[in-house]
Amino acid sequence: MSATPQTVPPASTVEAIKEKARRLSILSMMSTTAAGSGHPTSCMSAAELMAGVFFYAMKFDPKQPNSNQGDRFVLSKGHAAPVLYSALAEAGVFPESRVMTLRQFSSELEGHPTPRIPGVDAATGSLGQGLSVGAGLAIGARLDKSPTRVYVLLGDGEMAEGQIWEAAEFAGHYQLDNLTVLADVNALGQSAPTMYQHDMDVYRRKFESNGFAAEVIDGHDVPTILAALDRAKATKSKPQAILARTVKGHGVDFLAGKEHWHGKPIPKDELSKAIAEIGPAIQLPPDPGKSYERASLPKPPDFPAPAAPDYNPSKPVATREAFGAALKRIGAVNPHVVAASGDVKNSTFSEIFGDAFPDRFYQGYIAEQNLISLGVGLQARGKVPFLDTFACFLSRAYDNVRMAAISRANINLCGSHCGVSIGEDGPSQMALEDIAMFRAVHSSTVLYPSDAVSAERLTEAMARRPGINYLRTSRPKTPLLYSNKENFPIPGFKVLRQSAQDRVTVIGAGITLHEALQAADELKARGTNIRVIDLYCVKPLDGKTLAEQIATTGGRLVTVEDHWPEGGIGEAVLAALAAAGANLSKYRMLAVREMPHSGKPDELVDAFGISARHIVGAVGGIA
Amino acid sequence: MSATPQTVPPASTVEAIKEKARRLSILSMMSTTAAGSGHPTSCMSAAELMAGVFFYAMKFDPKQPNSNQGDRFVLSKGHAAPVLYSALAEAGVFPESRVMTLRQFSSELEGHPTPRIPGVDAATGSLGQGLSVGAGLAIGARLDKSPTRVYVLLGDGEMAEGQIWEAAEFAGHYQLDNLTVLADVNALGQSAPTMYQHDMDVYRRKFESNGFAAEVIDGHDVPTILAALDRAKATKSKPQAILARTVKGHGVDFLAGKEHWHGKPIPKDELSKAIAEIGPAIQLPPDPGKSYERASLPKPPDFPAPAAPDYNPSKPVATREAFGAALKRIGAVNPHVVAASGDVKNSTFSEIFGDAFPDRFYQGYIAEQNLISLGVGLQARGKVPFLDTFACFLSRAYDNVRMAAISRANINLCGSHCGVSIGEDGPSQMALEDIAMFRAVHSSTVLYPSDAVSAERLTEAMARRPGINYLRTSRPKTPLLYSNKENFPIPGFKVLRQSAQDRVTVIGAGITLHEALQAADELKARGTNIRVIDLYCVKPLDGKTLAEQIATTGGRLVTVEDHWPEGGIGEAVLAALAAAGANLSKYRMLAVREMPHSGKPDELVDAFGISARHIVGAVGGIA
Repeated sequence: MSATPQTVPPASTVEAIKEKARRLSILSMMSTTAAGSGHPTSCMSAAELMAGVFFYAMKFDPKQPNSNQGDRFVLSKGHAAPVLYSALAEAGVFPESRVMTLRQFSSELEGHPTPRIPGVDAATGSLGQGLSVGAGLAIGARLDKSPTRVYVLLGDGEMAEGQIWEAAEFAGHYQLDNLTVLADVNALGQSAPTMYQHDMDVYRRKFESNGFAAEVIDGHDVPTILAALDRAKATKSKPQAILARTVKGHGVDFLAGKEHWHGKPIPKDELSKAIAEIGPAIQLPPDPGKSYERASLPKPPDFPAPAAPDYNPSKPVATREAFGAALKRIGAVNPHVVAASGDVKNSTFSEIFGDAFPDRFYQGYIAEQNLISLGVGLQARGKVPFLDTFACFLSRAYDNVRMAAISRANINLCGSHCGVSIGEDGPSQMALEDIAMFRAVHSSTVLYPSDAVSAERLTEAMARRPGINYLRTSRPKTPLLYSNKENFPIPGFKVLRQSAQDRVTVIGAGITLHEALQAADELKARGTNIRVIDLYCVKPLDGKTLAEQIATTGGRLVTVEDHWPEGGIGEAVLAALAAAGANLSKYRMLAVREMPHSGKPDELVDAFGISARHIVGAVGGIA
Repeated sequence: MSATPQTVPPASTVEAIKEKARRLSILSMMSTTAAGSGHPTSCMSAAELMAGVFFYAMKFDPKQPNSNQGDRFVLSKGHAAPVLYSALAEAGVFPESRVMTLRQFSSELEGHPTPRIPGVDAATGSLGQGLSVGAGLAIGARLDKSPTRVYVLLGDGEMAEGQIWEAAEFAGHYQLDNLTVLADVNALGQSAPTMYQHDMDVYRRKFESNGFAAEVIDGHDVPTILAALDRAKATKSKPQAILARTVKGHGVDFLAGKEHWHGKPIPKDELSKAIAEIGPAIQLPPDPGKSYERASLPKPPDFPAPAAPDYNPSKPVATREAFGAALKRIGAVNPHVVAASGDVKNSTFSEIFGDAFPDRFYQGYIAEQNLISLGVGLQARGKVPFLDTFACFLSRAYDNVRMAAISRANINLCGSHCGVSIGEDGPSQMALEDIAMFRAVHSSTVLYPSDAVSAERLTEAMARRPGINYLRTSRPKTPLLYSNKENFPIPGFKVLRQSAQDRVTVIGAGITLHEALQAADELKARGTNIRVIDLYCVKPLDGKTLAEQIATTGGRLVTVEDHWPEGGIGEAVLAALAAAGANLSKYRMLAVREMPHSGKPDELVDAFGISARHIVGAVGGIA
């Protein structure tokens, strides 16, 4: 792994680590049997690795296990949660008795780790994401010029996930030598043996081909593990992979290397026999029931107001371009902002930020899953990540966004090129499901600007707002709608056309808002007034104030969106109104209902039913 | 790549292929300049590779380019569409003049390939998916004992996508020697050089470490390409990777290897100069405007009625288990059914099918993106794929599902373990967004059975139904609700409780339907009758017939779902009713509104607001 000579830890240290490993195995067995579910055998294969990392390699303060002063650990194979909880308990983060509350309704020690637990930075349990989170933590440490080292425990089953290799490639490319992978290769997946079982050399070649310093070891031999951890620490300019050959259920004869024990606790009547094989039982007092849930989670740091936008009101600008301009303005006053793009910085315009702050911008290449999980790691270190690609390609990272929400993460995502209005590239590049996707994320905020000023103001709002923030930007240049001083509260909307004679309320955003304004002008010329609302904030949505507007137009409503009908603006509005007890007298939903194809933006907006012409028709049908 | 001696194709063949390559480059330049957009330089790097594959290696009938009798080609780097269209034209699939309609509103030749075009089996354009599709086609050919070979052209930029390595590992593991990858390594991504640029050996090591026979060649040297294609054909028991060092914009001095030309057509006034560097211009007649759109796309083959389910009405069965039982019954009468699972066959119960038909079942390992795209390849060969994992992990493959819809694919997905009712494993394993996700897919059908009989009948319906079919199954055992003979039309719903005195309609599915039935009993005991509807088909949804039911309960409605409020059953019902012009007098939406955690299923169903108790309360609030 490196030229460093093999170190020989003192025998007393080795014995101490062995004892820790023994305790981690026993606590994992005891807690899962008590819970009646869980994955003890997946913990036992990793006991010596965990003991080595936590009680030999890592330096951290058990009173502040998430501190940026200390080293960090990510359990990518989240189903081995009990061995992590046991390690945290042995380290003094909470009492051992607390581990026995595993998986109980009232316990913060859930079936899979979440940041509710001190010492956990990101939720895991959807496999294959932990190395990306670790890479984010490692990048954050590098940005902070911190000595923090990051350790990630992988399972072999999850190495079938492509994201592991997105992350490995990223870590190798950026030479993250403060990142150490420990792979627990126990050769058994959930339903069957893994693809490579104990062919350790395959894993070595894979990690080496991605720029890692890799070595294969016996994952149950403590001196070997400690020496490997020493070599990893000494390795420069490369991330390290310690590939450990292990046995699932190690230490207990009727479990060791046996199939059909995945995710099964040891029956109560066999527990003491199993424990006896590993050593003296552990006697624990009853847990007093005190929760150790983290009192506070990372929040986006405050920052002074950035320079105001200064757009020429007569010059159209694409919202995607305004996003990039805003990011640069914010970056100038907020040193915590870090941006990364999925090789589309010249389309999403994050290159404006990247050119201004090259040391805070990362080329994420075409690897969206890694891109999003990277942000989860960055925010866990107090950074304010902005991650971008085409909106449609964020669908590739939906599981990562879902897990980011369970991680209580504060991340900012920008998806450009939404809808049919992108034109000639065709449907593979058109996001028509992104509003539905992001609305159905806990703690999410969904923003959809229609002009450059709102795009800039909403981008700033994202940097201040906790949770999963999503900005939907459009490809075409659009006219300015607002003065450079306009504010955009969340939740909120803007009424752009109104009169006492309004017959119908029309709600749009992005391209369709401009179509609605054109429709309003055409209708007015024919003597029909309509109210036009810019729904720049799709979630959260204040149904009550929206209902008041619609009531003044007799409950007649048209929504129009560059999105599928399902889960988009129309359904968001219907649900908000229903929750507010509001009734619609007449309603028309305009959305994209057929599979689009290539064509000019204007041709497509009209052909797929969301242009001014269709709005005029819909209004005519209910006015 | 193999022991086969280097073959030497005759000079006349080499010259013919060179001429084809020249024409492919020129047509790619001409068509993109005419379109005013597109990616000519990404085509030019691949011209010799494409010429070699189409006019030397592949055997197919240009009149039936999607036939199972011939070889198949997948353009994974979909943005190089013009070079594919040019190759299809040169092969006689349609006239060269048709290529000049590229990206026009009226043309089937879209900005990125779709199966609207003869010779295209799957839509590409979201990168990194083509190798999985190719693996699906290759497996299908193997199942058919067909000599079909499958060729996949990859770009180097897209090799940053983890899915490429999920697919490579899969192809290597299953020794798909009828699958040949050509990698067009031109070293330039969209926004910047690729991670590895021309470090060809990295790619070789990556493919070799995944079980490929790999070799590096000069991607512009025709004799070398043809020899490599011969060696690939001769390789046994391994897929092959021909890693071609190429130059983006090859052949034209002001484009070759130059940055900032990605996705940019050659300006009209420079086109003839550029063409002249490659050779004599191509004169084409004006295109007559005849469409070559494929007349028909694959449909699920018909099959005889499978054995009927035979459940004991008094014995609860989990819907996930019924799915597996149904799959076995269907597999017995439909030889086209092929199933694959993401290493959870023992949780989703597809193992029941796998045990009965091992040669039609694939272990997909923990790689959901590959799993879904594999299905797209299988169905393009006339198979009926059923792909399963936990419902929450299907979020990992959302982009693949999106592209499957653009591919007009017929695939069947089963997601188990939906919602908080899974219990102790916690939120990382709970699908709470899957209904929103699958509803927002064009051509999708979303099915949500509440008992074993409906689960079996709906699984059979999926095997007969085109499009993207999704079955949401639950973890807990649930009582039987229907006789083994019951039918479940799509769209449709069942009214399980009704009387002339019903005050409120309650709509549920899965676990919440059983909670609703319990609530109905409790309310009836207190003198309040409610109507209870089983919404087993969430999409499509017939709002008119649903409105008739709700009207008879005074427009008072409660929906209850084990899902986030956004995009789920509640919003689906609201949208369907609004489209039908129906008005609700009073409405309550019960859904999961806070981030769940571990606990017993019953504890969680109650704690997160979707239990009988909450339904009783909601009914009481509006009855």
